[in-house]
Amino acid sequence: MAPQLRRLQIAVSGLGRMGARHANHFLHRTPRAELVAAFTPDPKELAWAKENLEPWGVKIYSDYDEMLKHTGLEAVCVATATTVHAEHTIKAIEAGKHVLCEKPLSTKLDISEQVLRVSKAHPNLKVMCGFSRRFDASYLAAHRAASSGSIGRPTILRSQTCDKYDPSGFFVAYAEFSGGIFVDCNIHDIDLALWFFSADKSPLPKLKSVMAVGVTALEPDLAKHGDVDNGVGVVEFHDGQIAYFYSSRMNAPGQHDTTEIIGTQGKLTVNANPTLSLTEAHTPNGISREIPQNYYERFQEAFVEEARQFADAVLDDKVVPVDMESSVEAVRIGVALQESLRSGKKLFFDRRGNQVEDGARAKL
Amino acid sequence: MAPQLRRLQIAVSGLGRMGARHANHFLHRTPRAELVAAFTPDPKELAWAKENLEPWGVKIYSDYDEMLKHTGLEAVCVATATTVHAEHTIKAIEAGKHVLCEKPLSTKLDISEQVLRVSKAHPNLKVMCGFSRRFDASYLAAHRAASSGSIGRPTILRSQTCDKYDPSGFFVAYAEFSGGIFVDCNIHDIDLALWFFSADKSPLPKLKSVMAVGVTALEPDLAKHGDVDNGVGVVEFHDGQIAYFYSSRMNAPGQHDTTEIIGTQGKLTVNANPTLSLTEAHTPNGISREIPQNYYERFQEAFVEEARQFADAVLDDKVVPVDMESSVEAVRIGVALQESLRSGKKLFFDRRGNQVEDGARAKL
Amino acid sequence: MAPQLRRLQIAVSGLGRMGARHANHFLHRTPRAELVAAFTPDPKELAWAKENLEPWGVKIYSDYDEMLKHTGLEAVCVATATTVHAEHTIKAIEAGKHVLCEKPLSTKLDISEQVLRVSKAHPNLKVMCGFSRRFDASYLAAHRAASSGSIGRPTILRSQTCDKYDPSGFFVAYAEFSGGIFVDCNIHDIDLALWFFSADKSPLPKLKSVMAVGVTALEPDLAKHGDVDNGVGVVEFHDGQIAYFYSSRMNAPGQHDTTEIIGTQGKLTVNANPTLSLTEAHTPNGISREIPQNYYERFQEAFVEEARQFADAVLDDKVVPVDMESSVEAVRIGVALQESLRSGKKLFFDRRGNQVEDGARAKL
Amino acid sequence: MAPQLRRLQIAVSGLGRMGARHANHFLHRTPRAELVAAFTPDPKELAWAKENLEPWGVKIYSDYDEMLKHTGLEAVCVATATTVHAEHTIKAIEAGKHVLCEKPLSTKLDISEQVLRVSKAHPNLKVMCGFSRRFDASYLAAHRAASSGSIGRPTILRSQTCDKYDPSGFFVAYAEFSGGIFVDCNIHDIDLALWFFSADKSPLPKLKSVMAVGVTALEPDLAKHGDVDNGVGVVEFHDGQIAYFYSSRMNAPGQHDTTEIIGTQGKLTVNANPTLSLTEAHTPNGISREIPQNYYERFQEAFVEEARQFADAVLDDKVVPVDMESSVEAVRIGVALQESLRSGKKLFFDRRGNQVEDGARAKL
Repeated sequence: MAPQLRRLQIAVSGLGRMGARHANHFLHRTPRAELVAAFTPDPKELAWAKENLEPWGVKIYSDYDEMLKHTGLEAVCVATATTVHAEHTIKAIEAGKHVLCEKPLSTKLDISEQVLRVSKAHPNLKVMCGFSRRFDASYLAAHRAASSGSIGRPTILRSQTCDKYDPSGFFVAYAEFSGGIFVDCNIHDIDLALWFFSADKSPLPKLKSVMAVGVTALEPDLAKHGDVDNGVGVVEFHDGQIAYFYSSRMNAPGQHDTTEIIGTQGKLTVNANPTLSLTEAHTPNGISREIPQNYYERFQEAFVEEARQFADAVLDDKVVPVDMESSVEAVRIGVALQESLRSGKKLFFDRRGNQVEDGARAKL
Repeated sequence: MAPQLRRLQIAVSGLGRMGARHANHFLHRTPRAELVAAFTPDPKELAWAKENLEPWGVKIYSDYDEMLKHTGLEAVCVATATTVHAEHTIKAIEAGKHVLCEKPLSTKLDISEQVLRVSKAHPNLKVMCGFSRRFDASYLAAHRAASSGSIGRPTILRSQTCDKYDPSGFFVAYAEFSGGIFVDCNIHDIDLALWFFSADKSPLPKLKSVMAVGVTALEPDLAKHGDVDNGVGVVEFHDGQIAYFYSSRMNAPGQHDTTEIIGTQGKLTVNANPTLSLTEAHTPNGISREIPQNYYERFQEAFVEEARQFADAVLDDKVVPVDMESSVEAVRIGVALQESLRSGKKLFFDRRGNQVEDGARAKL
Repeated sequence: MAPQLRRLQIAVSGLGRMGARHANHFLHRTPRAELVAAFTPDPKELAWAKENLEPWGVKIYSDYDEMLKHTGLEAVCVATATTVHAEHTIKAIEAGKHVLCEKPLSTKLDISEQVLRVSKAHPNLKVMCGFSRRFDASYLAAHRAASSGSIGRPTILRSQTCDKYDPSGFFVAYAEFSGGIFVDCNIHDIDLALWFFSADKSPLPKLKSVMAVGVTALEPDLAKHGDVDNGVGVVEFHDGQIAYFYSSRMNAPGQHDTTEIIGTQGKLTVNANPTLSLTEAHTPNGISREIPQNYYERFQEAFVEEARQFADAVLDDKVVPVDMESSVEAVRIGVALQESLRSGKKLFFDRRGNQVEDGARAKL
Repeated sequence: MAPQLRRLQIAVSGLGRMGARHANHFLHRTPRAELVAAFTPDPKELAWAKENLEPWGVKIYSDYDEMLKHTGLEAVCVATATTVHAEHTIKAIEAGKHVLCEKPLSTKLDISEQVLRVSKAHPNLKVMCGFSRRFDASYLAAHRAASSGSIGRPTILRSQTCDKYDPSGFFVAYAEFSGGIFVDCNIHDIDLALWFFSADKSPLPKLKSVMAVGVTALEPDLAKHGDVDNGVGVVEFHDGQIAYFYSSRMNAPGQHDTTEIIGTQGKLTVNANPTLSLTEAHTPNGISREIPQNYYERFQEAFVEEARQFADAVLDDKVVPVDMESSVEAVRIGVALQESLRSGKKLFFDRRGNQVEDGARAKL
């Protein structure tokens, strides 16, 4: 490789499902980045790394702190289990590394806020939470249109995250640590609301109320973790905007994430009419098409674009495309929805972000 | 016309926008019915009736009570202003006439219940509230599929009623009497929830909670009537079913009513991909299609089918396809959503239908 | 029925599949027409008529000439077997009746021309061949758009008529009299080409060449009648327009008739994305939808509109919406395609409509 | 980069529009290949290469023969002007290099056959013509379905290649060397016919007849080169298969390439319902979506997949996914269509591939 080209020296922390994918993206699909190291404490993942990363010159670590000392390392992509996101991000920042952290920063609001504080204390470092949908071509097209004013003022947003049913019940065990369906799934939809409601360069919308309900239609065991397999949440913002969400673990044909951005003069839809490819089959049973089977099949290119834009932001010293304050706000809203689901109550917030007793005070 | 063929002798009450359409449907598109009379107190409507109905042998009345005495009259289609629905329906029933009444029975729950009581006191008469979507080919196809068990247990229902923006502001004045957006628009969606959640012949689902929010994005004057131009409502039922609704008065391209019925094993969508016809235009601006401009353009054939099935039910002494108890329940839910919108509170109900203080009691 | 309203007194000749439908349309769905008589020589059809038409006051005849003498009869809808279309049409015209004749006028060009001559000799009578697609809402929307100039000059037209496979093999026996797949099926597509290529009020396009090929993929016995179950035809017109056609008897999910009108500045598609209704099913197998099972399921409303516009044309003395010269030209082109299929040769025509030996002469 | 990983050492010849893209694909998106050299005689392209390739360690040549001597070079991607494809391919083969050559091999049949002969004389080398659609996810899904027998025997294929109108008139000058619209555009569709008609592992279908017509709707100057801006072609194969094609230089919204594969038991469509992304805009003008503006926007990922599969074929010594005999046959058919367009005549071929006088002999 030519010495005159500067490429971002990056490491990946965590080589599970998403970590391995991030490693591949930085290794093979991000021209301006070079994957130089990877960390995992897991023997299976280590074996995978020996076979798939090491031959390309990637140094494998089983100790995160050691990896942070890797010579020349500039940035870390944190893709561990969610419970470790914040710790690894903070450690990397404190070691002077730029960070791309998988969503969510944490399932806890206070921990997320701590990450924000640490990142603010290092203004020379780029720190970004990886909300992948913001890098998807379809969402980008919608956001450009909304930003141009073509639908007037974005006022209502509907968004859903629906996974194909996994009969292995993996997500039941996972629910113990996931933060719940609104924090795990709808966090993406919440992020989209924050993104589109500030598409006109106005500040982040201010939370006014949340209300959530849910059912366990297929997996009653989720109740053990206070979670559901189908959730509906409604979020009001001060200044007249509403977002409403749906999440499900039982979408029959596959992954179906859809968003509608409804403005005073028009509407944008993303994936109202889902499909895996441009192919349809005409058979005696009618006309049919397939859809993606999981979020990676749907958003693979978005993850790659995310990696590229993160590398660009660091190398060209640009503002990262996903704002940290917004990512913390997404956690706040997700956690509040989960709390509303648990308590059955509508929760109210004043303009300063404090939870208040009732709607009357929320108007202040 | 051959004497041996019995045709239902029917009258229409009210010849406004929908009344005139009902009159035409019974006159020209319902082979087993004969429009014999029509009532309106309005001079403009009377003039229209003289020109368009009288030549076909329809007797025009400006006094409703007189019309009810029309010789041979068997049935009345009530299509007056909503505020008169209940009164005319009750009078007709008491005069021994079968009744097809436009939705909603009333914007008040107690009045709706009174209509139900009167109708129950006349079990020999067919009384039906005209929820037109139940007669639409697409909704019927979806209901057949749901009834067959093809999607497992219907668990979540999403439904929206979105009107094209009317810059004349007609709907602002109309809001004074409409009962509000949830009673006027989403009443259809509520009815669909009741219909689909009992598709497996189980009893009507029992209301557990309602929560509604809304904004006035384009017509702040709606606030005078406690109404909004965009509303989001969530309804929980005892036994684990959730319906969530959206209504809007500002849908840019036209009428867009959509429903998703989500079951434990699959999903049915109605109008996820709206279009007026099978025609698309490929121009330098992309590919575009039109959608219906109003609910009648979307549901005209459904109204005709409704008229036919009502005539069949009377002539063949069959159960009417829309159950009166369900139609009253729809009013109850619509009114509760409107109250939740007004108060900003989530409302809870026990299994017997009584409003209770909090969610804990709603579990009883 | 009020005496002051004039309704077209019409009879239907032939009560087979389409004849019975036409009878029902005129009886129940054409307010300005009154079905007063019907003819069929067939005992089964007679029995059907006794049960379904006679009770409504329709007089049934088993002798066509007798029916033409029915008092007050003004018009006849000819819906017999194709072989009788011309004879009944001519007899009706000569008896002073207006005629709506099912397509095609005949499978023979000379007979079609004879019908044209007779109709021209009776300029006071309305005579129209029933090309139903011209009355379909989607085709009408496309034609309005083309006529408005929105796609520039219509230059290329692609159109197909594809039937669901009928395992009974009915269409094999039918092929003996149908005139062949281009005359029986693609005649509609040919008619559309003539309609759209003159959408800008220019005269009918002039035939320059035809070329057809075909295969018997499922029914080799069709070869006995010189016919195929899949045909492709290309038609050139003088002045630079091309239409190309496909017809099939083996479309798996149902009826799929599609048309593209390609202009110098844009394109219109009709039914590129076929569906029976607005309903889709999301199942573990993907997303699926149904399509119409036959042409009547697709075009029922178009047939009704055809009946209404025919009645209007007679009662209001307007030009009929389908020009007779165009309908004869459609037969000429269909017959030529069939001849090209049979011989394997490309056929050429000069501007006066005469077949010529080769392309060089076709330029004259 | 780790020494133990073998990566295909490849060069690109030609750095025009497609050449530069191929260079980027091999440089940044093909993990198992390493772009080591590039050739272009063009000063502008050289300047681009200095800036975009040289910094990554790619050696730039302005002499093709010199480049072939590049140490360690294993393969060449030929992406020059079409007129040079064959020459460079043959030279590379004779220098012992594997070759991926842009389509078509040549606009002349005899030259294409010469490439085939040379490649056959070097059975140890992988030589492949880059028909990119065969690597598109949607076409691959369709081919898997067809190969599995799910639509019965593929019998009819419709395919079109439609470019957005380029008002610069570039394609008029280009027509002098392009070989004409059937060789330049429909060559892809012809290749698809050969691919799908042998999806069941049967040998390549044998050409029986071709017939083509066309018009110059927007660019009369094309006539100078015997070319058209809209062409329709029909190809018959011995053994009962038909392919029909359309190509256009004036598709208003962008690139619209569509294929239907029609079998005896079903149909597969690719891109019947084109779209650029999953985003739609709902505005007062209706619902609209964009489509790709050119073939690269549509097929970018296919080109990348093509590069990857070519590298795999060489490194793993597998059969290349596009057969050379098929690529020559595509040229034969394209050239024959162009000749039919020019002469206005239908051309016939016997089973051995010889052109014969008439259809009767074509049956032999």
